Amino acid sequence: MKRRPTSKVTPERARVYNTRLVLKTIYERGEISRADIARSTRLARPTVSDVVADLMAEGLIEELGYGPSTGGKRPLLLALATGSRQLIGLNLARERFSGALIDLRGEIAHRVDLPLDGRNGNVALDFVYSAVDALIAASNRPLLGIGVGAPGLVDAASGVMRQAVNLNWRDVPLRDLLQERYSLPVLIANDCQVAALAEYTFGDNIAGVRDLIVINVGWGVGAGIIHDGHLLYGNPLGAGEIGHVVIDKGGERCPCGNTGCLETLVSTHAILRRARSLARQDPDSLLHQFSSHPEAMAFDTVCQAFNSGDPGVRCEIEEVGHSLGAAAANLVGAFGSCRILIAGPVSCFGQFLLDAIREEMAERCFPSLATETEIGFVSLGSDIVLLGASALLLHNELGLFAAPLG
Amino acid sequence: MKRRPTSKVTPERARVYNTRLVLKTIYERGEISRADIARSTRLARPTVSDVVADLMAEGLIEELGYGPSTGGKRPLLLALATGSRQLIGLNLARERFSGALIDLRGEIAHRVDLPLDGRNGNVALDFVYSAVDALIAASNRPLLGIGVGAPGLVDAASGVMRQAVNLNWRDVPLRDLLQERYSLPVLIANDCQVAALAEYTFGDNIAGVRDLIVINVGWGVGAGIIHDGHLLYGNPLGAGEIGHVVIDKGGERCPCGNTGCLETLVSTHAILRRARSLARQDPDSLLHQFSSHPEAMAFDTVCQAFNSGDPGVRCEIEEVGHSLGAAAANLVGAFGSCRILIAGPVSCFGQFLLDAIREEMAERCFPSLATETEIGFVSLGSDIVLLGASALLLHNELGLFAAPLG
Repeated sequence: MKRRPTSKVTPERARVYNTRLVLKTIYERGEISRADIARSTRLARPTVSDVVADLMAEGLIEELGYGPSTGGKRPLLLALATGSRQLIGLNLARERFSGALIDLRGEIAHRVDLPLDGRNGNVALDFVYSAVDALIAASNRPLLGIGVGAPGLVDAASGVMRQAVNLNWRDVPLRDLLQERYSLPVLIANDCQVAALAEYTFGDNIAGVRDLIVINVGWGVGAGIIHDGHLLYGNPLGAGEIGHVVIDKGGERCPCGNTGCLETLVSTHAILRRARSLARQDPDSLLHQFSSHPEAMAFDTVCQAFNSGDPGVRCEIEEVGHSLGAAAANLVGAFGSCRILIAGPVSCFGQFLLDAIREEMAERCFPSLATETEIGFVSLGSDIVLLGASALLLHNELGLFAAPLG
Repeated sequence: MKRRPTSKVTPERARVYNTRLVLKTIYERGEISRADIARSTRLARPTVSDVVADLMAEGLIEELGYGPSTGGKRPLLLALATGSRQLIGLNLARERFSGALIDLRGEIAHRVDLPLDGRNGNVALDFVYSAVDALIAASNRPLLGIGVGAPGLVDAASGVMRQAVNLNWRDVPLRDLLQERYSLPVLIANDCQVAALAEYTFGDNIAGVRDLIVINVGWGVGAGIIHDGHLLYGNPLGAGEIGHVVIDKGGERCPCGNTGCLETLVSTHAILRRARSLARQDPDSLLHQFSSHPEAMAFDTVCQAFNSGDPGVRCEIEEVGHSLGAAAANLVGAFGSCRILIAGPVSCFGQFLLDAIREEMAERCFPSLATETEIGFVSLGSDIVLLGASALLLHNELGLFAAPLG
């Protein structure tokens, strides 16, 4: 039985491990003294001092000054030098590429935004380069690397975009292309996967959380799964591709070739299409009043009509909740009770949507596991994929969290 | 952000790690010299010699004699002392408890089998003790511990059986009860989970495999999921409870309270019930010929009628395959392309069943992920849960694989 090679604990590996452990401790605690690092990590004081000296020499951490005494001498506090590095995050979304310069705490300093206007293939690839060029030109700190969240099937370990239908990309070795061009570390993963990593890294209320599922509901639909502190990529890819799991067999044809995929039922595109149809059918509806030209209706109008109590829209959103509830039940079947958070513009449907999801989920999986499953919204907004792309770098380049690639 | 405490690399931890690495290498390679262990693990030769001396003193490994020369001196080969320890494996199945004494390679030396005849509660608990008493009396080697595969919701980290409907057990701290009574290490997990661990540990054709899903189809139905070499327990429990994920909403009522759960469609109980109904409806059917008293029909009779081409039975089994295919698609949605193996008496339906599963799965998840997903049967037979229970001990007590509890 040949398995993945394991290797011994060498002094070098131990030093890397201990350095990452100290940096992670400082990152998580915000402000902490050397003595408290030693207590928290159970490393020897001299080891902590050595590692801290190295990290300060690299500029990754800094001394903040003396904190209040807790009995003895006032402790000299250390903190992450948040602005000591910049990360480039890219979101290769369906209709527009966006990119940002991001600091080590997920603050965005500079953005670029490139509408694709239907471009794909090599032209779209040039747009990726344009975005990175612009961000590098705007950067004023050492760059840690480039993180990319991309739609479709992404082989994170090899950095190859295996299949991105809208971009007309197949087997594009985007990581190698970017690494060669910019001589920076590059990490690529599926956009819904990195959204989960973003919430896990920068989100609210995740103290002590090791397991988290984010269902990203946009033009496309997919899940990102954090299991025991690790992002699941799939082996080699495809973890969380729930947008193409069939919920309503024999339903609407999906571009993937099957019928009734979750995406055909709950994507913003699907919601908008049905709302337009509702508006055309009923000129007296609120939906029609808010948007007299149904063909030009924006997603915000659907939210507005929903919040104003349009019964047709509320009925539609209840159905969306039930479809998402079926998908949630499937995830509970795989992982047991869990925390499932919804991301994307559908958050405008608020508690009403969550209640519909919960109700359907409870009818579709083991009752006590449903009871122990939390359904909510992510705390991050529309930058979640950009932030997730940068979080890939924090996890893999700095080892701040545990989500090793490959 | 407070997360699970991490701890430093101490010399003691390194020694434990290196010992486990050497033992694992010997276990996996079968026969190997000290020099090859050093090459394979990249440990220093003196370290390997020290660790080997310790393992020989414990009796876990032995010198086999000299192997053929590969150029220089003939190498002195080491191997696992397969019979140096015995493991107790228990399968607390629905209608009967079974137990076995098992060696370090999964060979069964002695069995006990206790039909429950409807007993539950404390009486059933006494049956567990009777099984262990009998196995301890029959053992003739030092015991490594007791591994238990149990139906229902099992909290593996705390060793508590949270919910086992048929045994009428709720929150039974079985691990502590057994540990106190026998002063042996005890590990407990869900029966379908340990079935996957058994196939991963003792199965054929798993060289290089790190991800594996076993769907166990018996009286109950559930999945065991090995992800990157680790068994998923759920946090804290319930991973793989696909038997109660709804496939046919509004279908038959399940004891869990919902309708149309996978278990109501594909369990051996459900198959047998429908076969009995078919036999009653059609006295000319093969099914009726093979079993003139439908009420007393055994599952084997269904297999026999299937293999003789009974059209009603074949139609029923095709439906079973489609329901399992829907469940498989849900798992592909969670984990991406994977290897899914079916365990249990339904293996008598052979390739016909696998084809039906594959066909339905392909219509229910992302096509390229379906194409890359393997559907097959496990290589282990009806002892799979017993073997999995003992594998819990190999993984956790000897660290032969990577599936830490808790």
